[in-house]
Amino acid sequence: MLRQASQEFTIGTHGRGFYELTAQVTKWISQNRFQTGLLTLHIRHTSASLLIQENADPDVRRDLENFFERLVKDGDPLFLHTTEGQDDMPAHIRSALTAVNLSLPVAHGQLALGTWQGIYLWEHRRMPHSRKVAGHFVGE
Amino acid sequence: MLRQASQEFTIGTHGRGFYELTAQVTKWISQNRFQTGLLTLHIRHTSASLLIQENADPDVRRDLENFFERLVKDGDPLFLHTTEGQDDMPAHIRSALTAVNLSLPVAHGQLALGTWQGIYLWEHRRMPHSRKVAGHFVGE
Amino acid sequence: MLRQASQEFTIGTHGRGFYELTAQVTKWISQNRFQTGLLTLHIRHTSASLLIQENADPDVRRDLENFFERLVKDGDPLFLHTTEGQDDMPAHIRSALTAVNLSLPVAHGQLALGTWQGIYLWEHRRMPHSRKVAGHFVGE
Repeated sequence: MLRQASQEFTIGTHGRGFYELTAQVTKWISQNRFQTGLLTLHIRHTSASLLIQENADPDVRRDLENFFERLVKDGDPLFLHTTEGQDDMPAHIRSALTAVNLSLPVAHGQLALGTWQGIYLWEHRRMPHSRKVAGHFVGE
Repeated sequence: MLRQASQEFTIGTHGRGFYELTAQVTKWISQNRFQTGLLTLHIRHTSASLLIQENADPDVRRDLENFFERLVKDGDPLFLHTTEGQDDMPAHIRSALTAVNLSLPVAHGQLALGTWQGIYLWEHRRMPHSRKVAGHFVGE
Repeated sequence: MLRQASQEFTIGTHGRGFYELTAQVTKWISQNRFQTGLLTLHIRHTSASLLIQENADPDVRRDLENFFERLVKDGDPLFLHTTEGQDDMPAHIRSALTAVNLSLPVAHGQLALGTWQGIYLWEHRRMPHSRKVAGHFVGE
């Protein structure tokens, strides 16, 4: 018999970079004894992303951040939307270039992540923020 | 008791830019009295995207468009696929760099969007098009 | 009465490029007689992507590959994570710039794909790999 559940996750950020939320999500799954189904996460902001990436070598995340800083330059004179700071419009563009929601199958009580995959909130703003991620599960 | 529903949304476009479909989707949710569940949207084209972005300052969308026009240049001599026009291959690349489907939790009868989030169809072609977006809801 | 099902798809790759999996997914749908619902695919790797793209002119995929090779250069001196080869960090970045999961409505026993849309695994590594894609269906 299928059922569903909703949850809101809160992640405090302190500047650009990656904040892993795999443990928070995994805990919610095990506490509710979800066995098989579909887990969805949606970030309720347009200046941060949700990313599935390698959780082993931290250089991968450093290189990702450096690549995106070079691709989408803070203070680019192209931008008209500058009142919220030089990192604001780049944050919107980085959000468009990556993902704001994720859909993950759950099987045998676990997320169908690969061995080296972690779920990250990618903060694109330099100031601290409190980020909200809406979670939904449908299954058994 | 879980149920599901399907819907096709049609959006007429007249050149590159953003066409908000939040109201169309919200109307479908309220008409069907969906309370809690998962809403999925999929655009049935490879030269337009679905994007969740800021719905306040229109300069954000103008900057997004300008950034993508500079990143993926119309008529780039790199491209072999040119028979459908100089903006066609850039449209496919912009589609690959962004999203073609979105997964949004519904809670308390409303999409779990943030305060500043709207759902947009991002048209990447210069000529007018009629775009089809497949919608699905599962929940209560 | 809603039901769900899970499946793992395996795709062997032999170098960078696109490997269509539309037929594999379609076969799973027809064998299980899924009529209406939601299909989710998640790739369990961080150096390959899932992409919905044009399935007609193969030049589209060639241009996509060439564009991404120019945008994210192999052996870029910016990268610190180089022990797994010059194409490894670009593969992670290409994964972040594209999608690792897809959500597709199913209606009338068929994926709600557009006429010209195919589902591709986009391999970003040069060496052969065996890639796993987790599939989930909920519906009728």
